[in-house]
Amino acid sequence: MAPADVARELHDMPANRRAEVAKALDDDKLADALEELPEEEQVSLISALDTERAADVLEEMDPDDAADLIRDLPEDVAEQLLDRMEPDEASDVRMLLNYAEFSAGGMMTPEPIILAADATVANALALARAEEVTPALASMVFVCRPPLDTPSGRYIGAAHLQRLLREPPSTLVSTMLDTNLEPLSPQSPLAEVSRYFATYNLVVAPVVDDQQHLVGAVTVDDLVDHMLPDDWRGDQMDELAPEQVNNG
Amino acid sequence: MAPADVARELHDMPANRRAEVAKALDDDKLADALEELPEEEQVSLISALDTERAADVLEEMDPDDAADLIRDLPEDVAEQLLDRMEPDEASDVRMLLNYAEFSAGGMMTPEPIILAADATVANALALARAEEVTPALASMVFVCRPPLDTPSGRYIGAAHLQRLLREPPSTLVSTMLDTNLEPLSPQSPLAEVSRYFATYNLVVAPVVDDQQHLVGAVTVDDLVDHMLPDDWRGDQMDELAPEQVNNG
Repeated sequence: MAPADVARELHDMPANRRAEVAKALDDDKLADALEELPEEEQVSLISALDTERAADVLEEMDPDDAADLIRDLPEDVAEQLLDRMEPDEASDVRMLLNYAEFSAGGMMTPEPIILAADATVANALALARAEEVTPALASMVFVCRPPLDTPSGRYIGAAHLQRLLREPPSTLVSTMLDTNLEPLSPQSPLAEVSRYFATYNLVVAPVVDDQQHLVGAVTVDDLVDHMLPDDWRGDQMDELAPEQVNNG
Repeated sequence: MAPADVARELHDMPANRRAEVAKALDDDKLADALEELPEEEQVSLISALDTERAADVLEEMDPDDAADLIRDLPEDVAEQLLDRMEPDEASDVRMLLNYAEFSAGGMMTPEPIILAADATVANALALARAEEVTPALASMVFVCRPPLDTPSGRYIGAAHLQRLLREPPSTLVSTMLDTNLEPLSPQSPLAEVSRYFATYNLVVAPVVDDQQHLVGAVTVDDLVDHMLPDDWRGDQMDELAPEQVNNG
């Protein structure tokens, strides 16, 4: 069953039954489903688990979704959960919590595809085709000076997956960077990020701080999530005329 | 200069100067820039050209953008332009004009990547890497029974480019279809289309009519265009708080 369908099933259950089913799911299945639920249901589900289990589930979520959920919890609960999470996962989430929810920094994922300056097309394709990478994230690779991790790698540029497919496997990715592409700043507000995606017809975009560090990447599905009303899985939007949705 | 930047230059010019520059641009350069301008400026620019030239420029535009522009012209002018366009291009645009602007049919492109049931991964990659295909359209290929054209091919299914990259070149695409993916209907309203993209984290989605014909594909950049206010290239959205943009 796809995560969206598991989420739909959970959404349609009475709250007590929902907590029972959540407890019975694997950590990663529950994490995937949580990402698709309205925020208030995420909060009530996570609060129904004991701290250890809740921390395990948060570790399995995309860091940007985990950060959005943690933002909605009481401060002491949030701090307890972050303390129980693996240090690596917790530090990704803590970094995202530094940015406003509706900014590029608050929407981004800290785990885009990052390559060194001497990486080849073959190296890039090997990372892009990995099953755990989403189609949106796979559509662009980023080149950095080491360390090849956010938020400390120095950003050099970005190359489109589709462009890489036109070249022999031994070609250097750094010779195929898109020179027209300005990175987003982590402080860029939602309105600027939406205009940016619409202007450049992008699927994913680099987020670079003022010291030229690549801090993450915003994917267009995260952008659409943030452009929609919070309860978009309900029926509220069906009641709106297209003009209202469009001119909101 | 990127189309978005040409559009920005045109946008910042006085109207009479703008018409002069438009006349001096190549058909395809002007078409690309038009796609990035607010609709009222598109209308005034197209109206400043003679019918022959205007028809040539419309032919170079993405059919969905051309349809959106034609919708805003007086009916007799629209009919004249459609008559002067190449029959193939005109019929794509006429088909799109049958659907409401804020529906899947009105937003879709009629030219996604379409393959026959016996196509291989190598066939699919050869089409996906073509320079004129956008990164979003390249991220998914559609399998149809012949004819392999919208709106008459019978839809069989869709496969993710990223998935294809995991298989040997001789594998049949039809063995790698995403069975979880329900197609959109051309009548699906904007609210439903946005929920669909947010739920499935998609970049492009098939649009199939009730006779199982693939009529086109909606890409997420077209969706973002339609979710934004019409004058999103102006500064209006900067004035809005994130909550207003988000809850519109």
